Amino acid sequence: MTEPATLIWTDVERIRAQVPLVHNITNFVVMNNTANALLALGASPAMVHAPEEVEEFVSISSALVVNIGTLDATFVAGMKRAMKQAKALGKPIVFDPVGVGATSFRNQVSEELLTLAAPDIIRGNASEIMALAGLNAQTKGVDSLYGSEAAVDAAQRLSSVWGSVVVISGETDYIIHGDQTAKIANGHPLMTKVTGMGCTATALTGAFAAVNTNYFQAATHAMAVMGIAGELAVSKNAAPGSLQVNFLDMLYQLSEADIANTLNLA
Amino acid sequence: MTEPATLIWTDVERIRAQVPLVHNITNFVVMNNTANALLALGASPAMVHAPEEVEEFVSISSALVVNIGTLDATFVAGMKRAMKQAKALGKPIVFDPVGVGATSFRNQVSEELLTLAAPDIIRGNASEIMALAGLNAQTKGVDSLYGSEAAVDAAQRLSSVWGSVVVISGETDYIIHGDQTAKIANGHPLMTKVTGMGCTATALTGAFAAVNTNYFQAATHAMAVMGIAGELAVSKNAAPGSLQVNFLDMLYQLSEADIANTLNLA
Amino acid sequence: MTEPATLIWTDVERIRAQVPLVHNITNFVVMNNTANALLALGASPAMVHAPEEVEEFVSISSALVVNIGTLDATFVAGMKRAMKQAKALGKPIVFDPVGVGATSFRNQVSEELLTLAAPDIIRGNASEIMALAGLNAQTKGVDSLYGSEAAVDAAQRLSSVWGSVVVISGETDYIIHGDQTAKIANGHPLMTKVTGMGCTATALTGAFAAVNTNYFQAATHAMAVMGIAGELAVSKNAAPGSLQVNFLDMLYQLSEADIANTLNLA
Repeated sequence: MTEPATLIWTDVERIRAQVPLVHNITNFVVMNNTANALLALGASPAMVHAPEEVEEFVSISSALVVNIGTLDATFVAGMKRAMKQAKALGKPIVFDPVGVGATSFRNQVSEELLTLAAPDIIRGNASEIMALAGLNAQTKGVDSLYGSEAAVDAAQRLSSVWGSVVVISGETDYIIHGDQTAKIANGHPLMTKVTGMGCTATALTGAFAAVNTNYFQAATHAMAVMGIAGELAVSKNAAPGSLQVNFLDMLYQLSEADIANTLNLA
Repeated sequence: MTEPATLIWTDVERIRAQVPLVHNITNFVVMNNTANALLALGASPAMVHAPEEVEEFVSISSALVVNIGTLDATFVAGMKRAMKQAKALGKPIVFDPVGVGATSFRNQVSEELLTLAAPDIIRGNASEIMALAGLNAQTKGVDSLYGSEAAVDAAQRLSSVWGSVVVISGETDYIIHGDQTAKIANGHPLMTKVTGMGCTATALTGAFAAVNTNYFQAATHAMAVMGIAGELAVSKNAAPGSLQVNFLDMLYQLSEADIANTLNLA
Repeated sequence: MTEPATLIWTDVERIRAQVPLVHNITNFVVMNNTANALLALGASPAMVHAPEEVEEFVSISSALVVNIGTLDATFVAGMKRAMKQAKALGKPIVFDPVGVGATSFRNQVSEELLTLAAPDIIRGNASEIMALAGLNAQTKGVDSLYGSEAAVDAAQRLSSVWGSVVVISGETDYIIHGDQTAKIANGHPLMTKVTGMGCTATALTGAFAAVNTNYFQAATHAMAVMGIAGELAVSKNAAPGSLQVNFLDMLYQLSEADIANTLNLA
């Protein structure tokens, strides 16, 4: 059996070699970070949201990432067309239900998007996964009030209803698909003090899904790389401004040895 | 009488303990920075602007920050609903009239917002405060052409008309409420070479207003913390790219001793 | 004859002395970076896109920069009004056709904007310049699949049709206006691993055009300063997160000696 670190590294090398175009419809807060994270990893990011052009753009992309962080009517219209087109063309869709559960608008839009085109991968924190599964989860804006374990049942339900790989990110990340479960215990609590680290995880997942059609593996590898780069960055300087900078540097410089030495399968 | 540094520190500790949810409707340029500054300070930021959901989001937030930097019709609609709701629920409103005086649209929107829901705190540079007070101030885009002192009369007028605490930020910050005036002389001129430092001051003010209902104190403490973190950051490296990074690090690591040693009440 | 480095330095000093207001209608991904780059260079940036106010804002600005990176209907409406007004007032217009060729929407909007108000300067990568010239160029999202040399004919055609100075940026930058051609071979490949470096080049070009009405020189000087600051930044740390930070520091600290020692006219 191939070692997990080797499998992860194979996907990183594929991304660096293929430079997949990842189409993001994401929120205003994180567009810059997630574009830079995708570039540092080796992918080619584009942020394109206008309903007039998303279908055409999906058709030249290798993966679609949809994130509802700062959604409004224009963006929702773009998300719908893009997801429908990605589904029609068989391109992987990664969905990040930021803040779902906090407002009815987010709940309704998420439900509409899932129904229109079930994502291949869904990534959220525990509150978001529970809310998306229809549970009456408590949220605090975009923060979770639960540990990842609390959302495992909800993730399994979501996975069974939509057929999606479901990622609950937190101190331990759970990656769930049907009966399969993987856990990653990399990362550092300081990462929650930098905005959009969850959104970055979702965007990186898009790059892995573009090179590995086993989406359970793709999601697992993305969460591992995210956590490892974050851990290495915090080890350089445990402060949030520096973390942002060092995270991109580490992601760019990531080696097979970094992965083998740091990977923590919980 | 309690020392000013102790009062400031008490509010910082409250923010770190309560992690107040601060709802921002702000401009595209600074969303990432202000979210990171709020996180580094210890608050929980969210950027939510869609008219469909702002009322519901205000109701779960502890403060509302409205900033007109890159306003357009959609954002203005969201600002109006959010401010009206915050007023109805008694949640603190902090308003940043970026670039008011530069265009009729900004003047008109600002007037409408003030009339709809008088903010608890208004923060601007001297040109903006003068323009908002109806004076025919000269502006250069979003920069002030005046020192803070020039806007003291305008700030007093604004405070008397709207009942708001008015902050004029500049080399010396003036915090004005009715007959009360406080001055803070912290900060560094290099901070004007980093975009959105004023917007960050406004966002941090939202966090202080969320934990201290004495809004005159809240605004004063926010300006002090802003200036102190900026000064400490410049002392590490006097260049604008590094300043952005070090500012977040300093804000996160801020101690009571930092405040006591650096605070400069003009 | 004045040395090229001296001419470049003269423009940098003009920007620092005059602090020109540069009006940007640009994309969400890069607004923060380009504002910071303009500040670090010595200019005064503003991001203003609402159709309700762009005409008034153009009238107080010294240059207009239009970038279609994340265009949508609202932004296009603002771009049209702003460009028409800039043309009417004789203010320099710099245009960045991000991702043109990737979708029909981008092609159509670009054509409409050029027809409405021919830009004084156009900057793009080779794919974009070829697509804008009506050639059936291949693109990969926002990345070029060609070296700059491949787009020289297209740039000459664009320059002849619209009267614009045309910049092809790449490993070697070509600046073309009618029969004139300049080449700059500064910069570093790592700059392509940071999002929005091309957009930053365009924004800086706006500042140079605001102080030097010889737009061929303005564009050449901007590309030189961009490449030199990038090279100096990479020499401090060859990793993309650090590059962003160091680029702003270098741009702020740029001296005549830096230019003289680093300038590379291909």
